[in-house]
Amino acid sequence: MIRARVIGKLWSTRRVEALPAGALLELEAENGARLIAFDPLGCNTGEAVLVTQGSVAAGYFTGRTVPVDALIIGSIDEDGDTSS
Amino acid sequence: MIRARVIGKLWSTRRVEALPAGALLELEAENGARLIAFDPLGCNTGEAVLVTQGSVAAGYFTGRTVPVDALIIGSIDEDGDTSS
Amino acid sequence: MIRARVIGKLWSTRRVEALPAGALLELEAENGARLIAFDPLGCNTGEAVLVTQGSVAAGYFTGRTVPVDALIIGSIDEDGDTSS
Amino acid sequence: MIRARVIGKLWSTRRVEALPAGALLELEAENGARLIAFDPLGCNTGEAVLVTQGSVAAGYFTGRTVPVDALIIGSIDEDGDTSS
Amino acid sequence: MIRARVIGKLWSTRRVEALPAGALLELEAENGARLIAFDPLGCNTGEAVLVTQGSVAAGYFTGRTVPVDALIIGSIDEDGDTSS
Repeated sequence: MIRARVIGKLWSTRRVEALPAGALLELEAENGARLIAFDPLGCNTGEAVLVTQGSVAAGYFTGRTVPVDALIIGSIDEDGDTSS
Repeated sequence: MIRARVIGKLWSTRRVEALPAGALLELEAENGARLIAFDPLGCNTGEAVLVTQGSVAAGYFTGRTVPVDALIIGSIDEDGDTSS
Repeated sequence: MIRARVIGKLWSTRRVEALPAGALLELEAENGARLIAFDPLGCNTGEAVLVTQGSVAAGYFTGRTVPVDALIIGSIDEDGDTSS
Repeated sequence: MIRARVIGKLWSTRRVEALPAGALLELEAENGARLIAFDPLGCNTGEAVLVTQGSVAAGYFTGRTVPVDALIIGSIDEDGDTSS
Repeated sequence: MIRARVIGKLWSTRRVEALPAGALLELEAENGARLIAFDPLGCNTGEAVLVTQGSVAAGYFTGRTVPVDALIIGSIDEDGDTSS
């Protein structure tokens, strides 16, 4: 998995039907790379998230085959710097 | 998934039979990398698209096994700069 | 597989239910890249580990589908420098 | 998929039995990276080819499990510069 | 697949049981990247090898699910420079 930060939301009106309804978030990984992930948790811009990639991301959607290759699986607990 | 832009169309007359009929588009990802994706949506050159990669791209083609590892799954809504 | 070193532990209170209980460790690979892996072995910070990635990491969890794309599969025997 | 150019042929006499008989070609991708792909089309050195990677490459070999993670799926039609 | 050279052997006494018995070799790819692969062929340090990656590497182990994402599938025939 990788650690990434939510930098925005992506909208796609014209899309394949197999893409599940739900939020698609734009993320920036630790190395600066950008990616888009499906978000089942309702994360906000600026939030640090844990992302899984590849076919295991699609496996999260049980009972159907979805073309999703990146999934937010957790919000990362951040303690420290900003709260002290 | 990644965000990319359509930069052209690829033609391949001599190809394996398992490759589905349909458009193969050349894309440029945000980081400048080039890739080729299958396009079920009829996208145009210059259009911003959402791309899924790996085995989940092939899973989109139900009932058959296809050697497709990159698929356009949405056209990205672009609002703003150019329309204001 | 890749060789990596444990650099910390990651906490995620708000997470998808499909993510198995257990330690998520932050790792630094040989090339400096950071990643997060599930740790079934109880590794410590500073330990050199062997990591497998992709769907085979999820396959380790038999009988259920988990969104895990990186798994520590061994602690690497280090002999030499530090013990002499 | 990626676009690559055939730069040579690879020979491997001592190999696992699961590797199918057939040509293994050395390719150079657009970004300069080198890879080896199985070639079911009989491509020649210098030819521009379309390559699929990962488990979908192995899926091309129906009825058996092969350790092939890169497959040439088309010869790219090149028109223009050299013919004008 | 990629071409790589064997640079050493990796030992891991404490490891998950699902990891098959057998040699784990440290490899250096053509681009300088390091990786660890399972070796069913008994390759030696310095030998040039053909490596497959991802879930197809695990598929080589029939009848069981193994967390192996890189497998040596051939020794590359090297003729020329050193023998002349």
